[in-house]
Amino acid sequence: MSTPILKQAPTHEYSRIIGIGAYRPEVIVTNDDVCQWIDSSDEWIRQRTGIVTRHRAPAGVSVIDMAEGAAREALKQAGIEASQLGAVIVSTVTHPFATPSAAAALTDRLGATPAPAFDISAACAGYCYGIAQADALVRSGAAEYVLVVGAEKLSDVIDNHERTISFLLGDGAGAVVIGPSETPGIAPSVWGSDGSKWNAIGMTHSLDDVRKLGETARHSDESDDQAIIEATQDIWPTLRQDGQTVFRWAVWEMAKVAQQALDSAGIEATDLAAFVPHQANMRIIDEMVKKLKLPETVVVARDIADAGNTSAASIPLATHRLLQENPGLSGGLALQIGFGAGLVFGAQVVVLP
Amino acid sequence: MSTPILKQAPTHEYSRIIGIGAYRPEVIVTNDDVCQWIDSSDEWIRQRTGIVTRHRAPAGVSVIDMAEGAAREALKQAGIEASQLGAVIVSTVTHPFATPSAAAALTDRLGATPAPAFDISAACAGYCYGIAQADALVRSGAAEYVLVVGAEKLSDVIDNHERTISFLLGDGAGAVVIGPSETPGIAPSVWGSDGSKWNAIGMTHSLDDVRKLGETARHSDESDDQAIIEATQDIWPTLRQDGQTVFRWAVWEMAKVAQQALDSAGIEATDLAAFVPHQANMRIIDEMVKKLKLPETVVVARDIADAGNTSAASIPLATHRLLQENPGLSGGLALQIGFGAGLVFGAQVVVLP
Ligand SMILES: CC(C)(COP(=O)(O)OP(=O)(O)OC[C@H]1O[C@@H](n2cnc3c(N)ncnc32)[C@H](O)[C@@H]1OP(=O)(O)O)[C@@H](O)C(=O)NCCC(=O)NCCS
Ligand SMILES: CC(C)(COP(=O)(O)OP(=O)(O)OC[C@H]1O[C@@H](n2cnc3c(N)ncnc32)[C@H](O)[C@@H]1OP(=O)(O)O)[C@@H](O)C(=O)NCCC(=O)NCCS
Repeated sequence: MSTPILKQAPTHEYSRIIGIGAYRPEVIVTNDDVCQWIDSSDEWIRQRTGIVTRHRAPAGVSVIDMAEGAAREALKQAGIEASQLGAVIVSTVTHPFATPSAAAALTDRLGATPAPAFDISAACAGYCYGIAQADALVRSGAAEYVLVVGAEKLSDVIDNHERTISFLLGDGAGAVVIGPSETPGIAPSVWGSDGSKWNAIGMTHSLDDVRKLGETARHSDESDDQAIIEATQDIWPTLRQDGQTVFRWAVWEMAKVAQQALDSAGIEATDLAAFVPHQANMRIIDEMVKKLKLPETVVVARDIADAGNTSAASIPLATHRLLQENPGLSGGLALQIGFGAGLVFGAQVVVLP
Repeated sequence: MSTPILKQAPTHEYSRIIGIGAYRPEVIVTNDDVCQWIDSSDEWIRQRTGIVTRHRAPAGVSVIDMAEGAAREALKQAGIEASQLGAVIVSTVTHPFATPSAAAALTDRLGATPAPAFDISAACAGYCYGIAQADALVRSGAAEYVLVVGAEKLSDVIDNHERTISFLLGDGAGAVVIGPSETPGIAPSVWGSDGSKWNAIGMTHSLDDVRKLGETARHSDESDDQAIIEATQDIWPTLRQDGQTVFRWAVWEMAKVAQQALDSAGIEATDLAAFVPHQANMRIIDEMVKKLKLPETVVVARDIADAGNTSAASIPLATHRLLQENPGLSGGLALQIGFGAGLVFGAQVVVLP
């Protein structure tokens, strides 16, 4: 039997971001609020992290709700109907169901069915990972328009009483629409991982412990009650980190990755209109600006002061704010870089929508 | 300021699967074993599902362990060093940590650091979704070689005593390496979602309930103990489904999607060497074979009899078995289609490695 040649979809030469949207939940948590829960001070938090407030979602607002808010604005700005979407990617680590994905529900709500829909897990690099994939899908002809959302309800996976990470984190969602372009709008991604630091940021314990506790409770007698109650008090897995390991890695390794992203784009720091790093710590941002020798003309995103660290949502949220405060940046080049649990990282130069 | 033109990575014209690997965990669960837990019979299960056994992983074997086993075989068969990988995609809904991803740990174990690594959540369509993305990454020049793994430890998210889904499911992992090709090896994917059926397959409850129970247990007094113990007995979220809704959708809609995948590839059913549908139910497989009017010459994957439904792992596991039992299929065309919770689906014609 002679095997016939498989057809291939027509490709697009270039892709770009054509619209952006943001959702900032309404509850504002100040440093003084935080200091009710942990031994800290407004001054320490401002000096060591640059964070002044973070937004958090109330009980009734889910990852999908926030994703929907950001996505609707992005679609509107892009001038694209939901029905034109060829893929919906939600980057999140806080959707509270193992399955189905947040993306499948979002796609239905937006009226984008039957677009392919999936969630990706790449923590604080998740938005840049999503951009890398969306760019590949558009350019290879797998999709014409792709919605990329970073959406996190981190307040659901933190213990406010622990002091390594909870005080840094906020909730929110940011979204962009990627589509075909006449000129290059997304440069090659410099993305990667270092799983040797898998334990630097992660959960206190496995979901498997939840299963085991449930089974124990089913097969126990009254004499075990006290032990079960105690185990139940700690059953919710929450985030922890080795902050210094992450800090050092971010400052040293991520500045190199950011430089590589400039090199792969074939541009210099002086060509940039904006720098949008993951909003993890103002001191990390300052160090990267220094190491990259960014000229004063480059506008630097510092949304962290207001929003805290929103993981996969931080870069699109910060970009959205930059564009609102400086509409003239539109059409200029931005260097964006995400990094986080894995450890994983992703960076690329994009043309701002 | 004149904006410089961003460089773009050199593209590859075509991609193909160049190696495949499988991991089947050692514990074999028979229908008689299952009938100790639910009111059923070996005969009923065989007749209504075609399942005879399913493999399950023992306590010490994780999603990452199984992924590693399958990945090592795929790399070996592909003749590719781990260090040549340009991306590692793990499709799973059973990795027991919200973050970091299984992919980041796998990448480190394989020696593939610093390859980008991420997990995707697309349930039983996850492998075909991974292939669609890997094909786009290779052809758009974002990566040269991509590892796609479907790995599931479903035994960790089922209650053996419930009767809608637990008896169908098994554990396992399958992996492929995708790389550049001189001729087209992966046809356009027909993939999508129908989030209006988001509740047809899913978890009994949200992880947020685990958080709430933990908080309640912390702030309770002894009078609440009995209520907390009872809630703890049911705290582990497990899978449930509306089997008939999924069955009908699979038989009617998925046969159409499979036909569209043939059309997009520009081939006829008679051009196929093999058909590898998601291994959900033998009756669904038989119905699809009928609706697609597949000639007898097309070898149909029926791994479900031995392996049960392994979600994202089922298609690569079934393909691996087909190729072991019929080495002559290598180089022939296979139609593969995955579908599951979301609801989501993905299909494409591939050249078998
Ligand atoms: C978490 C982080 C702010 C801690 O800041 P740091 O300067 O590294 O703090 P250290 O852990 O070195 O601790 C320094 C001192 O501050 C104290 N401290 C730590 N956390 C504190 C807090 N929340 N409030 C007040 N004091 C604190 C320590 O106890 C220590 O006191 P000591 O000198 O008396 O022993 C910082 O490490 C960080 O931002 N890391 C990167 C985090 C990140 O980006 N993570 C997410 C990636 S996506
Ligand atoms: C789950 C599934 C096997 C059930 O088979 P079904 O033929 O649809 O069974 P129904 O739910 O219609 O029930 C028919 C009868 O079998 C009984 N039954 C259901 N599950 C049973 C079981 N596990 N053992 C024995 N009897 C069972 C029902 O009680 C019912 O009895 P009744 O006629 O006396 O009321 C089938 O619906 C299925 O495979 N669906 C698709 C599942 C799937 O692919 N899901 C994952 C997608 S990734």
